[in-house]
Amino acid sequence: MREDDTAQRFMAEALSLARQAAEAGEVPVGAVIVRGGAVIARAANRTEEKKDPTAHAEMLAIGEALKAVGGWRLTGCDMYVTLEPCAMCAGAIVHARIQNLYIGTEDPKTGACGSVLDITGDTRLNHQPHVEKGILREECSDLLKCFFRQLRRK
Amino acid sequence: MREDDTAQRFMAEALSLARQAAEAGEVPVGAVIVRGGAVIARAANRTEEKKDPTAHAEMLAIGEALKAVGGWRLTGCDMYVTLEPCAMCAGAIVHARIQNLYIGTEDPKTGACGSVLDITGDTRLNHQPHVEKGILREECSDLLKCFFRQLRRK
Repeated sequence: MREDDTAQRFMAEALSLARQAAEAGEVPVGAVIVRGGAVIARAANRTEEKKDPTAHAEMLAIGEALKAVGGWRLTGCDMYVTLEPCAMCAGAIVHARIQNLYIGTEDPKTGACGSVLDITGDTRLNHQPHVEKGILREECSDLLKCFFRQLRRK
Repeated sequence: MREDDTAQRFMAEALSLARQAAEAGEVPVGAVIVRGGAVIARAANRTEEKKDPTAHAEMLAIGEALKAVGGWRLTGCDMYVTLEPCAMCAGAIVHARIQNLYIGTEDPKTGACGSVLDITGDTRLNHQPHVEKGILREECSDLLKCFFRQLRRK
């Protein structure tokens, strides 16, 4: 399997979680964390359900992954997330030492991995994950666009 | 009571939590969240205990405060924190709509409220808390300096 296929396969898992979130009335964002070729954490955005603006997919996935590895760093772990992380999540990704960060689509409003801010690329902070954008970009972007279009119709 | 005295009184509570954290071997940072003149959440840094690099005092205090108000915004709430929040915590403070953010001492390495980044002052994001720095600055700063000095001696 080519490397591109691997990235797309894991992003498809994140996208599937995002779709489930949309069905539950949540802004559709999903994230998985992978270590050694296996998914060790899966999460979707749950801000509405938990009434908690910090319950983003990335934060929940990091919490799950930390439990899975039993440690307090995610060195050697990769994250696949359908939407570019915000400042909070990008900061958490840096703290957790995620190695590679694969992003579906950019967030031009609050994206903190190059779009509005660049926290993951800031060499003044003590870790910089390798960042790749545009994995299944169209599917990730369309899911969000449809969700907000339907929301406006309600 | 003058307004300054109120800020110092709440920062003294945050400082007391930070001191307890130091005794438990944690980097000494404490935070309280106040609404209508009453403390509704108290937390200290627990990254070591929880083996979780996201378990900063501010994140834990926001979680507690959200439970206390039963909602998913902390509109009208103020946070007092002994050390300038990092990118993750500053992002969470913006998401939670904290109204006033009182900071003890600056963090020249990772501070995201003006020192290294300015997430709380970024008008491209959808909320900007009012930020005041230097409440009991010397006490907050000394506690951290002593902690790291002792750590280096071990």
